[in-house]
Amino acid sequence: MKRIMLRVAYDGTDFHGWQRQPDKNTVEDYLNEALSKLLHEQIQVIGASRTDAGVHAYGNVAVFDTETRIPPEKLAYAVNPGLPQQIRVLSSMQVPGDFHPRHTDSVKTYEYQIIEREIPFPMERLYAHTIYGTLDVEKMKKAGAYLVGEHDFTSFCSVDTQVEDKVRTIYALEVDTQTLEGGRKVTIRVRGNGFLYNMVRIIAGTLIQVGLGRIEIQEVEKMLEAKDRQAAGPTAPAKGLCLVRLEYPLLTTTKSWDRR
Amino acid sequence: MKRIMLRVAYDGTDFHGWQRQPDKNTVEDYLNEALSKLLHEQIQVIGASRTDAGVHAYGNVAVFDTETRIPPEKLAYAVNPGLPQQIRVLSSMQVPGDFHPRHTDSVKTYEYQIIEREIPFPMERLYAHTIYGTLDVEKMKKAGAYLVGEHDFTSFCSVDTQVEDKVRTIYALEVDTQTLEGGRKVTIRVRGNGFLYNMVRIIAGTLIQVGLGRIEIQEVEKMLEAKDRQAAGPTAPAKGLCLVRLEYPLLTTTKSWDRR
Repeated sequence: MKRIMLRVAYDGTDFHGWQRQPDKNTVEDYLNEALSKLLHEQIQVIGASRTDAGVHAYGNVAVFDTETRIPPEKLAYAVNPGLPQQIRVLSSMQVPGDFHPRHTDSVKTYEYQIIEREIPFPMERLYAHTIYGTLDVEKMKKAGAYLVGEHDFTSFCSVDTQVEDKVRTIYALEVDTQTLEGGRKVTIRVRGNGFLYNMVRIIAGTLIQVGLGRIEIQEVEKMLEAKDRQAAGPTAPAKGLCLVRLEYPLLTTTKSWDRR
Repeated sequence: MKRIMLRVAYDGTDFHGWQRQPDKNTVEDYLNEALSKLLHEQIQVIGASRTDAGVHAYGNVAVFDTETRIPPEKLAYAVNPGLPQQIRVLSSMQVPGDFHPRHTDSVKTYEYQIIEREIPFPMERLYAHTIYGTLDVEKMKKAGAYLVGEHDFTSFCSVDTQVEDKVRTIYALEVDTQTLEGGRKVTIRVRGNGFLYNMVRIIAGTLIQVGLGRIEIQEVEKMLEAKDRQAAGPTAPAKGLCLVRLEYPLLTTTKSWDRR
């Protein structure tokens, strides 16, 4: 028996998120189906991050156990033909049999894409949140700095959660800009040891309000202290969010994998 | 009666191209329907470029005549709510009553996007042609230089055409690269006074073969001379192609419009 780790990219537009659901049409359901068919075993993957409906990923992670004799690195190529085009396994490798993608220390990187345009561009509509207005990026950076470090993020967590411990650590929060023809892209990039339900979308929604001048920079510190979801800004739309990367610092075999 | 010019962007993925068809589902059909409903007149737009199924556009152009009292610049905002999200009118303005978008001298700019990756990324699958391999961009530039200027482009035109005069002028052909995480984007940008049926896609397909070392640079000159579609390379997939911009040098009122 081998434990295999997959790096999974997907366009979340058409799916009901990652996690298995009775009506199927989730990333996890498609992976289970394609792997079970390929390997003639009943496969049930364990996902690292249960992204919401509409959220995208370049680098989510799933593991599963198999008796197959297909070399671990070849599994990515073998499984892709059985998946819808919206899902691609980018790489595969063997990991220790006790490796669990949610119970192992990890660093997650999310990006939230905002595009400033008067009229949304059709080809950007699925992968970014278009706003009409100009964001004050310096204000967003200053406000974001309050969130870096170890904090109780209760105010930045959907009330629809059963998680009790709301303390998480954000290692870095960056706001980048890129000039587009007739507009500008603003990317919020956040790295942390874990994120609560809707946390990145609430951070993005709050920083957008700061950037538009509707929330003062120092309000963000008070939001954290309030420990109340009502205190923070709105939840930004799912389509702007992408899980970019998952790193496992204690897993020493992932070097070549991370470069793809 | 006023003649109105629209700048139209669309994601061509789900449409049967620009031009009206009996089964509808074309960009032109959606525009006619939304404008007729908005203006309570029977509107029939004239398009500048009849792009193929799957081809995208940032800046196609359509004109129509109307009796409406809505100010010309406001029409873009008024019509968008009646269109599917895959189509957006980016701007609107009044033009002279005898302006015809296909019979007026214009400069068209197309871009063809190629992405080099071993495994296609789901979020790039609709707007680029992913290839496994590394293109020699210098070779592509040298081969492309043969196509610049006034030539008979019979070899670079689909045989399914009724156009007789196959002489067109390409003003510039550029090949740019952009580094992506785990890959590279290669953009072929071509500006000309007009393009034959499938011409940009055949140019792209040919230059990809040159970039992969399967066609010699100087073969491209011989392809032009052959005046035979069989002589040139394959037609690259529609989804990589985007009509970026249409300029009418003799139409002096388009300055602010072109900047959007």
